[in-house]
Amino acid sequence: MDAAPGRIVVTAGYVQALTLLARVLPEGAFALEDPGLPFHREAVRFAGRDVVPLPVDPRGAEPAALPSSGVAAAVVTPAHQYPTGVTLHPDRRRALVSWARAAATVVVEDDYDGEFRYDRQPVGALQGTAPDCVVYVGTASKTLAPGVRLAWMVLPGRLVEPVMRAKRLTDFQSEALGQLTLAEFITSHAYDRHVRASRSRYRRRRDLLLSALEGYPLEGVAAGQHVLLGLPGGAPAESHLLRQAAARSLAFGTLGDHWHDRSAPHRAGLVLGYGTPGDGGFPAAVTELARLLREETGGRPR
Amino acid sequence: MDAAPGRIVVTAGYVQALTLLARVLPEGAFALEDPGLPFHREAVRFAGRDVVPLPVDPRGAEPAALPSSGVAAAVVTPAHQYPTGVTLHPDRRRALVSWARAAATVVVEDDYDGEFRYDRQPVGALQGTAPDCVVYVGTASKTLAPGVRLAWMVLPGRLVEPVMRAKRLTDFQSEALGQLTLAEFITSHAYDRHVRASRSRYRRRRDLLLSALEGYPLEGVAAGQHVLLGLPGGAPAESHLLRQAAARSLAFGTLGDHWHDRSAPHRAGLVLGYGTPGDGGFPAAVTELARLLREETGGRPR
Repeated sequence: MDAAPGRIVVTAGYVQALTLLARVLPEGAFALEDPGLPFHREAVRFAGRDVVPLPVDPRGAEPAALPSSGVAAAVVTPAHQYPTGVTLHPDRRRALVSWARAAATVVVEDDYDGEFRYDRQPVGALQGTAPDCVVYVGTASKTLAPGVRLAWMVLPGRLVEPVMRAKRLTDFQSEALGQLTLAEFITSHAYDRHVRASRSRYRRRRDLLLSALEGYPLEGVAAGQHVLLGLPGGAPAESHLLRQAAARSLAFGTLGDHWHDRSAPHRAGLVLGYGTPGDGGFPAAVTELARLLREETGGRPR
Repeated sequence: MDAAPGRIVVTAGYVQALTLLARVLPEGAFALEDPGLPFHREAVRFAGRDVVPLPVDPRGAEPAALPSSGVAAAVVTPAHQYPTGVTLHPDRRRALVSWARAAATVVVEDDYDGEFRYDRQPVGALQGTAPDCVVYVGTASKTLAPGVRLAWMVLPGRLVEPVMRAKRLTDFQSEALGQLTLAEFITSHAYDRHVRASRSRYRRRRDLLLSALEGYPLEGVAAGQHVLLGLPGGAPAESHLLRQAAARSLAFGTLGDHWHDRSAPHRAGLVLGYGTPGDGGFPAAVTELARLLREETGGRPR
């Protein structure tokens, strides 16, 4: 990354970073990944912006699909796309930066779970390749807890003053107690130790999940705290599986929750988060999930 | 007050409470006290609202001056008006509530320093007399520290869902660490002890200031952390006194900073905060301030 202190603004979590940008960027829609988190689309719209879909394929977000004008920002999750788990392909990283420079807009890099990569070297932040047109946003929500409400933006220089002004006029400043606590946590190296220990713990959970679901088409397994299980054409509907899961006290997300246009035909899939339940309940939950899938999809998959 | 738990929303400080209301109240301008804090006018405008002046006289905010329509909220500081220090007169309290009911709008009660009242019983919150049309906002910024960023709104029932939605779509939720700490502080009674000790400390500071400035026309002395020193017609200009003060390492505000229309003729005055400097430096600062006023206004005042 390329993060001079003078270009870092601390916010009360990722959603505030996103909505502050929606207040200060030049006129235009925000392109959000499709599929992507519906809550972020709702927050951007509440800030007064139109939302346009940024399609995601197996190489990640596809900027060629963006309109040639009228878009103020493309918001992406390069390290581990949510919910598909795709890592943004190098060609796409270059294409996104080219698009942003040509359109004089920005790419917002939502690095929500970049600390958790299991099978290879961490992927560098997109921001490091183009600090002039990428806004990086990191967060403590996945490494510590969502209740911490601390995120950090690394901004192109021209956006520092506008974002600070919008922050000041929205909630004056970020609270100090949590920031001082986190600073102490970082400088004492306890934060690094915590992230390393969490990475090992989530890797073990992921490995248990992959082992229990061996043979199923799992995607995005290399990082993060969730995997995507693609449902083949003949499989039961997402909604049916959700109901059957609830009857067994299991919960997961579905791809269907994440499309911009839910009425259009789409591939189906289950978004399986493995951050919960606690270590005591996790193995039994995984076993129950595997049993559900075996029974509902008619035996072991191909 | 009339504060059922289900009508309380915790925000990241007063400014966020104000700007959330600016997002969700029905169309219309916000009436803000004149004189009043310029920053609040800026924040309300940034949230997309027009600001109209709500004149303040020796009985406090005067709702009769409000236009008969087109105003969505009147924002007042009833306990201790900022910056004049006036306590809202009972007639005006009734008039504000009548106005709000007739216009189907709300009064926002900014109780920024209600904990600090020295010479008589605390004034009841306006909200307690009309919970259907008054939004109460309390804050930890004066009792603890501005860096805490915790405020609490008590809302008419109809506004709870809209405000919670706006909060969620702006920064998702308030941070938990400071809230849990404050909750522990309150339930252990340490918060009450701290407020009582602070009240004694600020009263001593105020008494020292009043004693040093005896004979000057001081207003709003019964509460808070500041007094207003009215400047008579023949006195030097506020800007001159500010410069002379700076040369002696003194700082204060002026009434002139607080008018909506700074180009119109207005009475002059100095806003003397006594929350700083620390106890070690405070007596010397007060002595220096008294000397400055004596020299600049030509001897002791009448």
